Order: sequence, then structure tokens, then C-alpha cells
Amino acid sequence: MNKIAHVGVAVKDLDAALALFRDTLGLRVEYRRVVPDQGVEIVGLRVGESEIELLRPTSDASTVARFLEKRGEGIHHICFEVDDVEATLRALEAHGYELIDKTPRVGSDGRKLAFVHPKGTHGVLIEFYEKKPLADSQ
Amino acid sequence: MNKIAHVGVAVKDLDAALALFRDTLGLRVEYRRVVPDQGVEIVGLRVGESEIELLRPTSDASTVARFLEKRGEGIHHICFEVDDVEATLRALEAHGYELIDKTPRVGSDGRKLAFVHPKGTHGVLIEFYEKKPLADSQ
Repeated sequence: MNKIAHVGVAVKDLDAALALFRDTLGLRVEYRRVVPDQGVEIVGLRVGESEIELLRPTSDASTVARFLEKRGEGIHHICFEVDDVEATLRALEAHGYELIDKTPRVGSDGRKLAFVHPKGTHGVLIEFYEKKPLADSQ
Repeated sequence: MNKIAHVGVAVKDLDAALALFRDTLGLRVEYRRVVPDQGVEIVGLRVGESEIELLRPTSDASTVARFLEKRGEGIHHICFEVDDVEATLRALEAHGYELIDKTPRVGSDGRKLAFVHPKGTHGVLIEFYEKKPLADSQ
């Protein structure tokens, strides 16, 4: 576990959320993109070594749309950067935690990631994100 | 906004949560203490420059106890480290955000902190924590 990669926040309106995190609190936008297979548009704002990731549903069927319907806007998940997502999943499995992704999938930026079910992790939806290979680091 | 100081997670049982964050995910416990005026026992686990802060209510009247009753276990708040809590509060106020603490209070470790009401911040309970004065840094 290297660091908090990001904290995901489910919002209804990205521009209203940017008025807070970018315009009032002064965070820098690092990326903004639509992730069609997740049904979300995301904006990442840098804070230290981490990001605040705003998530707006682009489809009513997305998990973020269902989250908003059920709980309203708020913190949706936390993502940790790890060296090896596969090894992390096997450790969790060995301790009996329920995985959403039993093997890593590949994210919109080409990196391996996986989610763990919040039922077993004290209500916290946890994402693991694999560190960039050395050749890709800046 | 220097970094994410910590992400607070409301739990019913600290030892069960430590089985996940410490024993399975390998995070190091940095502190464990009771904060009587907040009605919580907290455990901080280091991850990169941030911490995961587990919060267990010690009183049924605490805000964390009420959170657990209403929403169950899960992510409770996010705390950002800033250089100047007072200046951050004034900027939020100028933009019309509702403050819980209109002036900074002093936390159990002697540092200035303040909370902002989640109603105006997209459902996110935000805490600001003042950076240690230089003379105190390690």
C-alpha cells in the first residue's frame, strides 16, 4: 500500500463541485474524461500525492447513479495505489474478504485495478490501483 | 491545501477494522487514543503521506454514533491539511459555504482544526487541519 491514489466523490453536477474544490479550495484539475464502461464522467483534482476524483453518472444504470439515488451526493470510494493488485486480491481472499473483481481489470488509462465489496470492509468501497511500471513513470 | 491528512472511517469495532487495515493490508498504526469531547476512540494508520483514521463511538450521543445509526459503517469524513485554517474558513464563507466551526478549534493533539457542513459541500463532511508550526516539525 503506497498511498491514497484518490478519494472518489459522487456528485450530480461537476461544475458545481468544481466551484468548491477548484475555485474555492484551489485544487488543480489533472484530468477530466468520460469512462463509458463505468457510465461516469470523472474529474481528478490534485492534492499532495493524491487526488479528489469527482464522479458524475452519464447513465442511469451506472453504480454511481444508483449510489446517488440511494444515499445522495458524498464520498463514494477510496482508492489505494499498490505495487501488485493481483497479490493484494489474493491476500484479501485468503482472509475471507469478498471481492467484486476476482482478477484485476484494466482501467481507462491502461492500469490494473480491482474493487473489493464494501459488505466485508466496514462499509468502505475500496479500489486498488496498480503503480505505473517503471518505464512509464515520470 | 497541502495533502489529505486523513480519511475518517466510522466503525463499530476497532479490532475488526484493524484485522483488515493493519493485519491484511499491512498498514502501520501511528496512534490510538480516546477523544472524550468528541465521544470517540480513534486509530490512525499510515498510508503514504496520509492516514486512515478509524473512529469508534464511545458515547451514544456522539456524531459518529448517530452516523452509524443512520448510515451504518463507512467513510465518515475527509481531512485536508492546510497552512492556515482561519484563512480557509474565510474563503469558504466568502463563497457562501456553511461552516460547522466558524472559527478554528484546537484538537486533541493541540493543532487547529475546523469542520465544514456537508450540506453545502456535495455531501462530503470536510475537516481542515492546520500544518504543524515549523518549530514542531520533525
